Amino acid sequence: MITLYGTTISIDNVTVVLDWLGIIVFATTGALVASRKEMDVVGFALLATVTGVGGGTLRDMLLGLTPVFWVANPVYLIVCLAVACLLFFTAHIPASRLRLLLWLDGIGLSVFAVIGAERALGAGVSPVVAVAMGTITATFGGIIRDVLGGESPIILSREVYVTAAVLAATVFVVCISIGLPRDVSIVSGFGVGVIVRGAALIWGLTLPRYRPRPGK
Amino acid sequence: MITLYGTTISIDNVTVVLDWLGIIVFATTGALVASRKEMDVVGFALLATVTGVGGGTLRDMLLGLTPVFWVANPVYLIVCLAVACLLFFTAHIPASRLRLLLWLDGIGLSVFAVIGAERALGAGVSPVVAVAMGTITATFGGIIRDVLGGESPIILSREVYVTAAVLAATVFVVCISIGLPRDVSIVSGFGVGVIVRGAALIWGLTLPRYRPRPGK
Amino acid sequence: MITLYGTTISIDNVTVVLDWLGIIVFATTGALVASRKEMDVVGFALLATVTGVGGGTLRDMLLGLTPVFWVANPVYLIVCLAVACLLFFTAHIPASRLRLLLWLDGIGLSVFAVIGAERALGAGVSPVVAVAMGTITATFGGIIRDVLGGESPIILSREVYVTAAVLAATVFVVCISIGLPRDVSIVSGFGVGVIVRGAALIWGLTLPRYRPRPGK
Repeated sequence: MITLYGTTISIDNVTVVLDWLGIIVFATTGALVASRKEMDVVGFALLATVTGVGGGTLRDMLLGLTPVFWVANPVYLIVCLAVACLLFFTAHIPASRLRLLLWLDGIGLSVFAVIGAERALGAGVSPVVAVAMGTITATFGGIIRDVLGGESPIILSREVYVTAAVLAATVFVVCISIGLPRDVSIVSGFGVGVIVRGAALIWGLTLPRYRPRPGK
Repeated sequence: MITLYGTTISIDNVTVVLDWLGIIVFATTGALVASRKEMDVVGFALLATVTGVGGGTLRDMLLGLTPVFWVANPVYLIVCLAVACLLFFTAHIPASRLRLLLWLDGIGLSVFAVIGAERALGAGVSPVVAVAMGTITATFGGIIRDVLGGESPIILSREVYVTAAVLAATVFVVCISIGLPRDVSIVSGFGVGVIVRGAALIWGLTLPRYRPRPGK
Repeated sequence: MITLYGTTISIDNVTVVLDWLGIIVFATTGALVASRKEMDVVGFALLATVTGVGGGTLRDMLLGLTPVFWVANPVYLIVCLAVACLLFFTAHIPASRLRLLLWLDGIGLSVFAVIGAERALGAGVSPVVAVAMGTITATFGGIIRDVLGGESPIILSREVYVTAAVLAATVFVVCISIGLPRDVSIVSGFGVGVIVRGAALIWGLTLPRYRPRPGK
């Protein structure tokens, strides 16, 4: 139920808006991969949809929450398809605003991590599993996008990306676990995700990487 | 229940025959990838099975129709394994009749799209979701085959392939939705799929592709 | 329930120990791929976890045994994460003992094949499906590891690997089917898997591969 006007703005409303923002941004990144590969409109639709709903789909299958979320509510599919059709004609616009897109993607990543963790907690799982589910929700769509689109997978990149999702989900789950109110927990998790991902975008923040030692 | 002789030929019989044809042809394309990579017989079995039942498996997992279809009915596995063993010794035969194989594959694609959409409708989903499920049933086996076999994924190819599945599923779902009889709907969806895929095979039909615009 | 001390050593205890050995070894192979790609600690965690629990996860999703096993028992995740953290600092140690690791991996492969087949039989499936589930449990984690880590997939390699899992699961299922006691069946399946995989490691045993015939 989306009610944006005529109601006071609650954390639920904000979450819903950010959730849709996340779907749209993720679908856009899928469509941009399709544009780089010069696919037809069906290829756009496939990559946009897989990227937009892939993470939440795997989460639901792992938790046994089937049929998965977009089966009950096809608006998710329709939005992804609309993004794909729109981008088929206008992909040069977001492609030339890549920096803005990366920021929106960071927002989507953080929202999905928090929402995914909350949905998992609602299914009665333990905190560690909830963090895993938040991370999967936030990152798996992009992982399939890269595998199907023949791109180098994001988890091989040097950037702090999956890490931002892990931290967003962790902060949210910790806040809930210590009894903080739901809205404070959501804002905290989301904020940490955006800040960490933002720091990666602004300053090229990376985690230390494994360095091979000389063998014997 | 497969009853081919002694009964009048009904649409159900035809669908069942085409379903098995689809499984066999898809398994064959998996085994052919294994032969190109010069795998052993276990590799043949793996790729044949994944290609033959992969699409329907993902569909069932998404819909929550678990255990998935081949768990209840292991004949599907056995047929795929038989195809793999046979092809291990005779892969040069279909490989030299590639054109025939591509046509049979187009028939399998169209049947799977219609059957997948029907199974989804039977699970009570909306029309848009049913089209998505038909498309997944028809194409996901081939997608995994290409990822596991290290081939360039079919969705990156220029051909009209996924599109034929989308159209077959769409026509079937639209026919059902406007109240046409089941057999008319099946034949219509199947026919459109075969015609579209056939046009791609005969005339090299492709959809217009995204063309990069000059950046700013 | 893990009770190692103060009880007589039963086949259950041995199976539990070998199961954990399998998880740890598989997680280690995931972390080693991460070290070869010089990932950060989050990449280590991701590949270790996916490799350690990936096979059993797909098995549970196919059988409809959801939520999957590690959702109910997060210790699996925690062990994989611990392995990832440890290996981030010490990956050069197992990397220089590759031969030992390959043997441990063969043990893990055989245990997972038997455990996966048993869990499938417990869910009431037919013998053929149980063998398939054992094989999936034993090999799918490594397959995803290679896809995500950008390595050449193990199923493309010349080695006898998937075959050892198939044989371990087959022997176990056959033993159970002909009415042998559970512990005899487990030991037989496990033993055959280790012997076959070991023969591959010692003598470079391979199955005959498909040889292209000259075309017409």
